[in-house]
Amino acid sequence: MQVADQIPSAGKTCTIADYLLERLVQLKVTEIFGVPGDFNLGFLDYIESSSKLEWAGNCNELNAAYAADGYARVKEGSLGVLVTTFGVGELSATNGIAGAFSERVPVLHIVGVPSTAQQKSKPMLHHTLGDGRYDAYLKAAEQFAISTASLQDKSTAPAEIDRLITECVVTARPVYLMLPTDLVHEQISSKRLLTPLNVEPPENDPEIENFVLDEIVKLIEEADRDVVLLVDACAIRHNVKKEVFEFAERTHFPVYSAPMGKTAIPEDYDRYGGIYVGTISRPEIKEKVESAKLLLSIGGLKSDFNTGNFTYQIPTTRTIELHSDHTRIRFAAYHGIGMKRLLPKLTHRMQPFREDAKALTVPKFTLPVPQEDNETISHLWLWPRVGQFFKKGDVIVAETGTSSFGILDVPLPGGSVFVSQILWGSIGWTVGSTLGAAIAARDIGLNRVILFVGDGSIQLTVQELSTMMRTGVKPIIFLLNNSGYTIERYLHGEKARYNDIINW
Amino acid sequence: MQVADQIPSAGKTCTIADYLLERLVQLKVTEIFGVPGDFNLGFLDYIESSSKLEWAGNCNELNAAYAADGYARVKEGSLGVLVTTFGVGELSATNGIAGAFSERVPVLHIVGVPSTAQQKSKPMLHHTLGDGRYDAYLKAAEQFAISTASLQDKSTAPAEIDRLITECVVTARPVYLMLPTDLVHEQISSKRLLTPLNVEPPENDPEIENFVLDEIVKLIEEADRDVVLLVDACAIRHNVKKEVFEFAERTHFPVYSAPMGKTAIPEDYDRYGGIYVGTISRPEIKEKVESAKLLLSIGGLKSDFNTGNFTYQIPTTRTIELHSDHTRIRFAAYHGIGMKRLLPKLTHRMQPFREDAKALTVPKFTLPVPQEDNETISHLWLWPRVGQFFKKGDVIVAETGTSSFGILDVPLPGGSVFVSQILWGSIGWTVGSTLGAAIAARDIGLNRVILFVGDGSIQLTVQELSTMMRTGVKPIIFLLNNSGYTIERYLHGEKARYNDIINW
Repeated sequence: MQVADQIPSAGKTCTIADYLLERLVQLKVTEIFGVPGDFNLGFLDYIESSSKLEWAGNCNELNAAYAADGYARVKEGSLGVLVTTFGVGELSATNGIAGAFSERVPVLHIVGVPSTAQQKSKPMLHHTLGDGRYDAYLKAAEQFAISTASLQDKSTAPAEIDRLITECVVTARPVYLMLPTDLVHEQISSKRLLTPLNVEPPENDPEIENFVLDEIVKLIEEADRDVVLLVDACAIRHNVKKEVFEFAERTHFPVYSAPMGKTAIPEDYDRYGGIYVGTISRPEIKEKVESAKLLLSIGGLKSDFNTGNFTYQIPTTRTIELHSDHTRIRFAAYHGIGMKRLLPKLTHRMQPFREDAKALTVPKFTLPVPQEDNETISHLWLWPRVGQFFKKGDVIVAETGTSSFGILDVPLPGGSVFVSQILWGSIGWTVGSTLGAAIAARDIGLNRVILFVGDGSIQLTVQELSTMMRTGVKPIIFLLNNSGYTIERYLHGEKARYNDIINW
Repeated sequence: MQVADQIPSAGKTCTIADYLLERLVQLKVTEIFGVPGDFNLGFLDYIESSSKLEWAGNCNELNAAYAADGYARVKEGSLGVLVTTFGVGELSATNGIAGAFSERVPVLHIVGVPSTAQQKSKPMLHHTLGDGRYDAYLKAAEQFAISTASLQDKSTAPAEIDRLITECVVTARPVYLMLPTDLVHEQISSKRLLTPLNVEPPENDPEIENFVLDEIVKLIEEADRDVVLLVDACAIRHNVKKEVFEFAERTHFPVYSAPMGKTAIPEDYDRYGGIYVGTISRPEIKEKVESAKLLLSIGGLKSDFNTGNFTYQIPTTRTIELHSDHTRIRFAAYHGIGMKRLLPKLTHRMQPFREDAKALTVPKFTLPVPQEDNETISHLWLWPRVGQFFKKGDVIVAETGTSSFGILDVPLPGGSVFVSQILWGSIGWTVGSTLGAAIAARDIGLNRVILFVGDGSIQLTVQELSTMMRTGVKPIIFLLNNSGYTIERYLHGEKARYNDIINW
């Protein structure tokens, strides 16, 4: 046997396991998260013998899902991968996968399931519900996946795998793959591997796209120089940060960010004005954004916490929205016109560095350090000071709650990455996602990974500190001990015992 | 206002929250498990102000679900109760609830959900999937609940609550209740509370039941004295331990237990012969069970690990099966004929203490302590010795894996309770379920709670040790450190790194 035979992409045949892993390697995946279980052990052998992939070996499946999510957020354009076992493993990851769905993060969930023969004969195996419903977990998973595949036949397996991974990356949503114990080892042709997957979004229909471009240019011209950009979560998830920045630089339009879009535009960019959150924005930001003649929203995700509880004061008649798969101009929706393809063409139509746009003032996004000292560390004291600690290229992870709210007002250095879960808001998520973020940051040469998490949240997922040691990443962790679920005390039950926790 | 007005069961009106809690108190629930979240905080106020209910305040939702499961297993006839919040909370509990479904444990999962108005208008609230699908979590939950209710109207709420709790206990399966933030506080008539819920199984159809009794008696007579009882999981879950023991005592038929039925019959009972697990039974047990002229199986759950991988050598022509909701006599199924009602009538038809049955020998179930000493603690060394440590009324919890397999062969003292998850087999489950089991044991006056768990399994759920401290229970924990996922090494990947863990 020649060496080339062992490299799936060199053609000939390979196992389904190796086919799947090679596809992941092609998309720059380096680490796979998960927990072993008897229905996935055969597959894990292939990961262990791969020279290009590492197995994280998480402490539990929820944490592993969080880690895959954090990895995918930092490693833009790639995806997070999670391997669990049938029933007991995969269902522990449900919340983590649902969070990735909600927040548009591409995560491939591979579940080791009973053999195709067992799936047909349906014996009362361990990890089953005891009633023969072998499709129950799939039915649950369908609620939280953009697409699913239950591999049943080696002839269709490679196409199914390709379809699933492509949808995962293109839509930036989780997908779910059932990998039976027998098919793992089946030999298939590896010919398809010679053609890399196309994970770019589809081309826009040229006729509609031109119409949309004309309409946008017309509105920008009508607004004269008074256009404001508002960048949000999906600009990051759908990988248009570069396109947005080029558009901003060419036009010099002022740029603001929604909370979930923080660091989509470098926060030290001189035309960047800070975070817009409806009525709870800083007054100067609110005034600038809401008084603009035209708002160009890019990758908007208008959830409650991301919009100051739905308090945007910008009429639709003055709004253009660019999304991954559609465009909205005032009241009109243009389905199928996605921003990844549209933005460069729009930039091309703009005059470079318009002086009149440059004349528009942008409030300086700063957070002065208050000088008064106090025995107690307050949020007012803390956040401006940690702002001075951050460096270029840091990854800053903020737990839902006081950490996430506190850090929004801190201007982050250029090239830094802000990671938070503002829509889904599952407490404990950051401990797992920091692990994934740190591995991704190590991969792509980012700087430090810095986590802010409270005493309440860390209790949910604390064991993943162990996997940080195992994988050798060394995030800096700020554990804010404020004696319980403080964000909930603000909402309800300030003195209720249910908001207390045991002080570790 | 008179004091009586504040006691829901005294009539007049009460809030929906108090109605629900009073129903739980009537069923002897004392502790509610869960994690606070903003959609359940209003409801938690009612738990906190109840003098009859305690809030456990778990470290995470999966552990809380495990605890509710462990509580229900030990507190037979009652149920476990779990409170989580919309999306992020409830979905973390999915594996725990599915395990309760699989293993037939009555757990009520109460989820604090957005208000009825929000469920109609479907804003992009935090904890949603961002696409308006407010029913997605319910659809997933339906896979793992015997019944669900989404409360939408105060007029139907009490009947819905009653229906759900009744189904939970009668079927010994989880149920799922969506409790909107606004309905929690709504006033309703408390009149129904004056009538306790009937959680006994329904009466059997007398004509069919008599026919079945005649058939069974006839087969027992034909088998002469040569009848063996095999007791399994559902005898415990459907609360017929007392009925089975009365039948055994009256007939003097030898009794054996499947692994999941361990301690359904006191293991020090002189007609009890030990654990039958198909071909992996002790030879004398295998011989006695398989050579009997008639096998009366009670509450059987024929999963792979519970049957020695489906190796029962007993022809159906020699088998009678009693189940919670049906009876099987050889090849005939009698739907609707449940064992709780049938067993006392069957006992009544038997002659007391038949001498001929007494003449049937039963192998003595013992586990001698080997005398050789060794530097290394082996399983052969350990289990006979821990057997000497157990006392009457202990609750013995064994994690899936070497603990569970090891302890099966240990005869447990009378009145002790064996808790394990042999069908579902989710590692880490015992840490949460020990918490629930210990609270239930304290309630009903059992003795010590003793947990056997491995180093691999405890990593999944370790934080729940904290809740043991919070709630003041003091289980004895044997942590078996065998350097990784040892049960998996036996199955596959003996030296694979994925079966290693970090040594804490």
